[in-house]
Amino acid sequence: MCQTLYSHAFVSTFLTIPKTKIVCIVQLCSKFKLCYFSVVEVSPLARCVQLYEAPSGQRKEVHLRYISYTLWMCFQVSIRAEKGGSPSLNTHTLWMFFKVRFELRNWFHKSTLIVPRRGSVAMLQVNCVTFPLPGEGPEQQLLKPNDWSYCDYFWADKKDPQGGACMPGFEILLQKQLKGKQMQKEMSEFVHERIKIEEEYAKNLSKLSLSPLAAQEEGTVGEAWIQLKKSLHDEAEVHLKFSNKLHSEVEKPMLTFRSDHFKKDLKKYDHHIADLRKQLASRYAGVEKARKALADRQKDLEVKTQQLEVKLSNKTEEDIKKARRKSTQAGDDLMRSLDLYNQTQSKWFEEMVTTSMELEKLEVDRIEWIQQHLRQYTTLRHETDMFNQSTIENVDQLLRAVDPAKDRDLWVKEHKTGDVRPIDLDI
Amino acid sequence: MCQTLYSHAFVSTFLTIPKTKIVCIVQLCSKFKLCYFSVVEVSPLARCVQLYEAPSGQRKEVHLRYISYTLWMCFQVSIRAEKGGSPSLNTHTLWMFFKVRFELRNWFHKSTLIVPRRGSVAMLQVNCVTFPLPGEGPEQQLLKPNDWSYCDYFWADKKDPQGGACMPGFEILLQKQLKGKQMQKEMSEFVHERIKIEEEYAKNLSKLSLSPLAAQEEGTVGEAWIQLKKSLHDEAEVHLKFSNKLHSEVEKPMLTFRSDHFKKDLKKYDHHIADLRKQLASRYAGVEKARKALADRQKDLEVKTQQLEVKLSNKTEEDIKKARRKSTQAGDDLMRSLDLYNQTQSKWFEEMVTTSMELEKLEVDRIEWIQQHLRQYTTLRHETDMFNQSTIENVDQLLRAVDPAKDRDLWVKEHKTGDVRPIDLDI
Repeated sequence: MCQTLYSHAFVSTFLTIPKTKIVCIVQLCSKFKLCYFSVVEVSPLARCVQLYEAPSGQRKEVHLRYISYTLWMCFQVSIRAEKGGSPSLNTHTLWMFFKVRFELRNWFHKSTLIVPRRGSVAMLQVNCVTFPLPGEGPEQQLLKPNDWSYCDYFWADKKDPQGGACMPGFEILLQKQLKGKQMQKEMSEFVHERIKIEEEYAKNLSKLSLSPLAAQEEGTVGEAWIQLKKSLHDEAEVHLKFSNKLHSEVEKPMLTFRSDHFKKDLKKYDHHIADLRKQLASRYAGVEKARKALADRQKDLEVKTQQLEVKLSNKTEEDIKKARRKSTQAGDDLMRSLDLYNQTQSKWFEEMVTTSMELEKLEVDRIEWIQQHLRQYTTLRHETDMFNQSTIENVDQLLRAVDPAKDRDLWVKEHKTGDVRPIDLDI
Repeated sequence: MCQTLYSHAFVSTFLTIPKTKIVCIVQLCSKFKLCYFSVVEVSPLARCVQLYEAPSGQRKEVHLRYISYTLWMCFQVSIRAEKGGSPSLNTHTLWMFFKVRFELRNWFHKSTLIVPRRGSVAMLQVNCVTFPLPGEGPEQQLLKPNDWSYCDYFWADKKDPQGGACMPGFEILLQKQLKGKQMQKEMSEFVHERIKIEEEYAKNLSKLSLSPLAAQEEGTVGEAWIQLKKSLHDEAEVHLKFSNKLHSEVEKPMLTFRSDHFKKDLKKYDHHIADLRKQLASRYAGVEKARKALADRQKDLEVKTQQLEVKLSNKTEEDIKKARRKSTQAGDDLMRSLDLYNQTQSKWFEEMVTTSMELEKLEVDRIEWIQQHLRQYTTLRHETDMFNQSTIENVDQLLRAVDPAKDRDLWVKEHKTGDVRPIDLDI
């Protein structure tokens, strides 16, 4: 980013601005804590001066790259200092950076007449966005190196294989968000299905626990059997509790995690970026128009100059003056429309970076959030199994207590008919 | 039991048999290891002799009871010796006891003419079974004291509250068996219902595990999600395994534990005992008939004797001889039918004891068997919960591994459109 900034800003200024203004640039940079010591270290001032005096475009190019690179490095340093970590942008730093960028830009405009420079970077225009040609222009470093950040990889539009309308890289980021929302909705549906299964299971278990089967079994076996039936009711309770917690602690949060506001927000991002792209297109058209106008004016001026060589007359003198004025005018128009285009592109650029980092943040939140709630699911499952274990313990206890002798005692006491034994009959 | 035996056997023999035969009784008893030392200790021989010579019925009674009691104690002693525990009958001892009983009985019959004894025990006849009146006759000890054994408590018939046909005590034992069979059948039905619930649950779980919901989730979350779905399939497997084992290790054994042979066997017992009761009834009728016949004969004899006193003639002499012969004959008939009745009652008695102990054994088996298989049920339930726990572990692992940054890397690598940033347009 800062390469794009400085390679252009400097290319289109250092050629024309005097020492004093270079000093101002440096002061301005240091004012924004961008490269105070870098000034001391690599003394861009001296180099600028030397550069200013140097005639060969080749050498300029080198030096300019070097200076812009130096500024970029200092910028990185300032961030490193700020984050106390590996050089990577956070939103605040980005904004600071953009502020600097505009201060510089406006300062250049107030202070200098921008003139076309020699040895410009060959560029490629795709859907009204201008990129450097491969290998051309200053080397670009990733905004967030080693980070596979959204803000680094979605600058180009995606070509549709069927050769239909191609899709902005930003659209792909938005679709990822929408898909994420959909996934989370489907997960909560899945959990809902699980809840229904648990409820059905619990219903059947507690229904069976009320069954009258073998209810007339007696004694210690009878007690164990009653407890065994009861344990089914307890199991049912456990599974019911599981399904209730699934509902309140997993399904519902998953369903309501991102309200419909979320989709509205995405729409806002979408429209905002899309509008900037439209603006960019119209500004690009404006530049083309102004370029053509300037070409016409310069042609007209040439014609009039040739006429002057043929026969001298006041009228022609007048015409030439007029034509030169109009040509200069057209030149200014071109520069203005060019500047308008670049301003819009910068705006789009900034929005792209900040918004894509917003989306990146959202996705991190979503994943961590899903992780948390699926963990809740497994926790509840573990609990269920543990509680289930305990439903059986009472049954085991009573089964250990089963005693045929005791059962016989109880039964005989209740049903005996008489313990007097018969005796032989006699007369 | 032995009281009934000896109180009668001895009462109806000692009065008439000589010393030599007492010795034989003692020898016979000792031959069956019933009262060898009891002979030494209380020397029933001496007492018998003394008894034989003693005139008073009262004193006889005492001695007879004492002897029979002694024999009973020795019998108990022999069992104590055999079981090394509290005096209670086991089937083998019972049989030995019955053998002794018959040896004695037959021996008395061969060797003695049974004559009615004075001072008999007042008895009560219920449904053709003869019991001692409360407080009358020798004291009865339980066959299996402190044991609430079937063989001690079902001698009487059960009166129907509605005053309808009353039910033999043995019927109640049989009904207990049938009810037990029914309970076990119902338990296996219950388990079958549980199996159906488990199968349904497993079916629903594995169906849900195949659901396509949130299948497009990507990266580490995607992996965790896939594993979570798979875990439902694993759970289903666990519950299916549970239901299969329930079927093979609980339901099926419970259903087939006692085949239909069992009911046939019960019927056999039932008919056998019932037949003996019928026989008992008819034998009792026989006794009554013989008793009446004897009475008639004795009346006839008296009449004829009176006639003799009036006028003496050869013819009357003849008649009296004839009448006396017939009266003696009738007396013999009564004794025979009496003996037939008592033999049948003994047979019934033995069947009652042995069969009820059979049924007692069957009930113990049934209860232990149910206990064992319900324990198998709880074991399987515990296993199920444990296996269920493990189905979640893989999910937990993958959830711990969820990493938003990694997921972004993967996604960006796949979907990035371009990392070349735009540059300002110039001419």
